[in-house]
Amino acid sequence: MKKELLKILREKKPLVHHITNIVTVNDCANITLAIGALPVMAHALEEVEEMVSAADALVLNIGTLTNEQVEAMIKAGKAANRLKVPVILDPVGAGATKLRTQSSKKILEEVKISVIKGNSAEISILAGKGGKIRGVESQSGADDISEAAKDLANAYNVVVAVSGVTDIITDGKRIAYVKNGHPMMGTVTGTGCMLTSVVASFCGVCEDYFAATVEAFVAFGIAGERAAQSSNVKGPGSFKVTFFDEIYNLTPEIIEKDKKVEYE
Amino acid sequence: MKKELLKILREKKPLVHHITNIVTVNDCANITLAIGALPVMAHALEEVEEMVSAADALVLNIGTLTNEQVEAMIKAGKAANRLKVPVILDPVGAGATKLRTQSSKKILEEVKISVIKGNSAEISILAGKGGKIRGVESQSGADDISEAAKDLANAYNVVVAVSGVTDIITDGKRIAYVKNGHPMMGTVTGTGCMLTSVVASFCGVCEDYFAATVEAFVAFGIAGERAAQSSNVKGPGSFKVTFFDEIYNLTPEIIEKDKKVEYE
Amino acid sequence: MKKELLKILREKKPLVHHITNIVTVNDCANITLAIGALPVMAHALEEVEEMVSAADALVLNIGTLTNEQVEAMIKAGKAANRLKVPVILDPVGAGATKLRTQSSKKILEEVKISVIKGNSAEISILAGKGGKIRGVESQSGADDISEAAKDLANAYNVVVAVSGVTDIITDGKRIAYVKNGHPMMGTVTGTGCMLTSVVASFCGVCEDYFAATVEAFVAFGIAGERAAQSSNVKGPGSFKVTFFDEIYNLTPEIIEKDKKVEYE
Repeated sequence: MKKELLKILREKKPLVHHITNIVTVNDCANITLAIGALPVMAHALEEVEEMVSAADALVLNIGTLTNEQVEAMIKAGKAANRLKVPVILDPVGAGATKLRTQSSKKILEEVKISVIKGNSAEISILAGKGGKIRGVESQSGADDISEAAKDLANAYNVVVAVSGVTDIITDGKRIAYVKNGHPMMGTVTGTGCMLTSVVASFCGVCEDYFAATVEAFVAFGIAGERAAQSSNVKGPGSFKVTFFDEIYNLTPEIIEKDKKVEYE
Repeated sequence: MKKELLKILREKKPLVHHITNIVTVNDCANITLAIGALPVMAHALEEVEEMVSAADALVLNIGTLTNEQVEAMIKAGKAANRLKVPVILDPVGAGATKLRTQSSKKILEEVKISVIKGNSAEISILAGKGGKIRGVESQSGADDISEAAKDLANAYNVVVAVSGVTDIITDGKRIAYVKNGHPMMGTVTGTGCMLTSVVASFCGVCEDYFAATVEAFVAFGIAGERAAQSSNVKGPGSFKVTFFDEIYNLTPEIIEKDKKVEYE
Repeated sequence: MKKELLKILREKKPLVHHITNIVTVNDCANITLAIGALPVMAHALEEVEEMVSAADALVLNIGTLTNEQVEAMIKAGKAANRLKVPVILDPVGAGATKLRTQSSKKILEEVKISVIKGNSAEISILAGKGGKIRGVESQSGADDISEAAKDLANAYNVVVAVSGVTDIITDGKRIAYVKNGHPMMGTVTGTGCMLTSVVASFCGVCEDYFAATVEAFVAFGIAGERAAQSSNVKGPGSFKVTFFDEIYNLTPEIIEKDKKVEYE
C-alpha cells in the first residue's frame, strides 16, 4: 500500500491549510501543488477555524511568527484536533530566540500535533537536550539525535522527523533512516519548509503518520537527487526550478526504485 | 485601437498599486513589470491614500486578508474612486470562509469597483447563486455562470471576469468568451492573482474596462499557451519561468494572431 | 585584501538578520545564501533584539513598512549599535509617501546606520535635495547626485550608495563609481533589495563599509552582466534564475577580471 501513497495523494488531492511564514509561503504553495495536493494559506484569527474545517491537513510553521499568529495557530490547531485533521509543526528557529522556543512549546502543549519536523538543533532543543542554532540553521544537536527524537516523540505522542544528511523519522517505537537527498537542497532557502508541506500532503491521505512522513522524506529527497543530476542545473536558481519539476514528475515507480530507507 | 493596447501600456507604463496577499505578491510585482507596467505594493493604513494618488490602477486582492488589511483596502479604494483610478477586485476564496465572503461584499458596497475577477465559484457566490469552493479552488459555480456574471455586473455596475477553461468577461450587456490559455497554468500557484495584476495594468491605460479586461485575458492566455509549447518546459517550475519570459516577449502582433475571443 | 573579500565571506558565512518587506523577502534570503552568507528573517518586536545579537549584519528594508515594523527596526537597530553589528538601511520608496520619508528619517535619527542604499530619488530626497519617485522607481534625483550623496554621508557619518546606470558609493570623503550591471536587472522586481542583502553580507565580514559596499556592487553587477549574456536567458523569468546561479558561481578571480570601478 505504501508504494502507492503518491498515487492516492494525487487522486484525493488533499487540501493543506498552511499558517506559515512570509519568506517561503509561495514555495510552500507551489510544492503542495506540485506533489499533487491543494494548498490554502489563511492566517486571520477570524477565519482559521472555518478554513481548517475543510482541510485534510494543517501546517503550523513559525518561520516569521508573531504572538498574534501563534494565537491563530493554536485556534486552528484545536479545531483541527476536534475534526481529526492531522497537524504538522515546523518549529523554525526554535532555540534561536526565546519567542520561538516558547511558542513551539506552547503549541505542543495546547495542540495535539501529529508530526514535528525540524532540523537537528530544533529537535534537540525541544527535546531538552541542548543544541546550537544560528539564525534558523542547525549548528549542532544532541549527541544522540535518534534518542532525542525518540524521547520527544514519546513525550508528546507524536511522530518526530529530523532533517539532515541522514533524515531520522520516529514515532517513539519505530525509527527510519532516510538517505535520499542532495547537498544542493541546502543552497535554496525554504527547502525545509517545503518538505513540511509535502509531509502534510502525505499525512492528509494516510493515517499512519509515521509511514506518511517517511514517504514524504523519501519522495522529497529523490526529487532533490534527480534535480541535482540534471544537466540544466548550474546553481541554486536553476536547481530550484528543476526541483519543482522533479517533484511534479515523481511517480510511485521512481520512488520505489530510488528510495534509500533503513528501519531499526 | 484595441489591437495596440499593449503598445500603449508599454509606452505609458501605468503605476499599479497593489494591496494583496503574502503568497503571490512577488509574482504579481514581476508580472506587472513583465507586461510593461510598474508595480508598487503598499498596505499601511497611513500611506495607502497617498500611494494610490500617484497610481493608474489599484488591485485589491484578499488572498490572505485580515480585518486591518480590508480597512486599508477600503480606504485606498475610496481615494481611488475620488481620483477616478480604476479598482480591480480579486475576491480570492470568497465562499470558503465568512470572512472572505463578507469582506468581498463589504468592499463591493463601499468602493466603486471597476472589474471583479474571480473563478467560477467566487463569482457565483458573490452573485448569490451558490457555488462550491475548496480552499481557493473552484469546485462548481452557478449552472449558468454567464448569467450569474451578468447579474453581478448589473448589480454593481462593474465588469465581471470569470477565469476558467473558457473565460467569461461581461459588463452586464456585452459578453466575451476567451478560449486562450493552457492547463499548465493551473499547476502554478498565483496565476489567478497575476492575471488580476495584468487586468489592472491594461485598465490603467484604457477607460473601456471591458475591452481592457478582454485584452488582458487574451494576452495572459496566449503567453500561457506559448510557454507550454516551449521545449524547455518540463514541469511547473520551468513553466513558470518561461511564462514570465513569454509575457515579457508578447507583441501586439502575437496577440492579434493568436487571440481566441467570441462576443455574444 | 579587498580582492579576497568574497573568499572571506564564504569562509565566515556571516549571519544577516533582515527586517524586510513581503514582496522580495524570499529573493533576499536566496541571494544571501547564494553569495555565501546565511539569512535569517525575523520581525517580531519580542525577538528582534535577541536575533540580532547572533547576527553579523542587520538589514532594515522599508519596502512594505508599517508603524509596528518600523518600531521593530529601531529596536533591532539600537541593539545592533550596542553590539557593533553593521546596519544597512534600504529606504524603499522614500519620497513616495510621507510615511516612508518620515520613517526613513526616524530610523536615521535613532539608529547609527552603516550604509544607506537607495536609488537616485530616494537618496536625493533624504539629502533634502528634492527628487521624484513613482511608486518605488526613481524618476529623477538631485542635479548633482554625487554631491547629494556626499552631503548625506557627511550628515549622518554613513556610507551612501546610489544604484543607477553608474552606481555611486561614498563615505563623504572617498567616492567610487561602479559601472558594472545590465539593464535586464531592472526587469526583475527586487534586484534593489537583493543588492542591499549582498551589501550587508559583505559588511558582515569587513569593517571598512565603504570598501565592502563597493565590492558588493561590483559583484552584483558582474553577476547581472554574466546572466544577461547567457544563451538560456529569454526574458526576465530566465534572467532571474540565471542571475542567482551567477551570484553563486562568482569567484574572486571573476570579480577582479570584470570589475569596472573608478575612484575620485
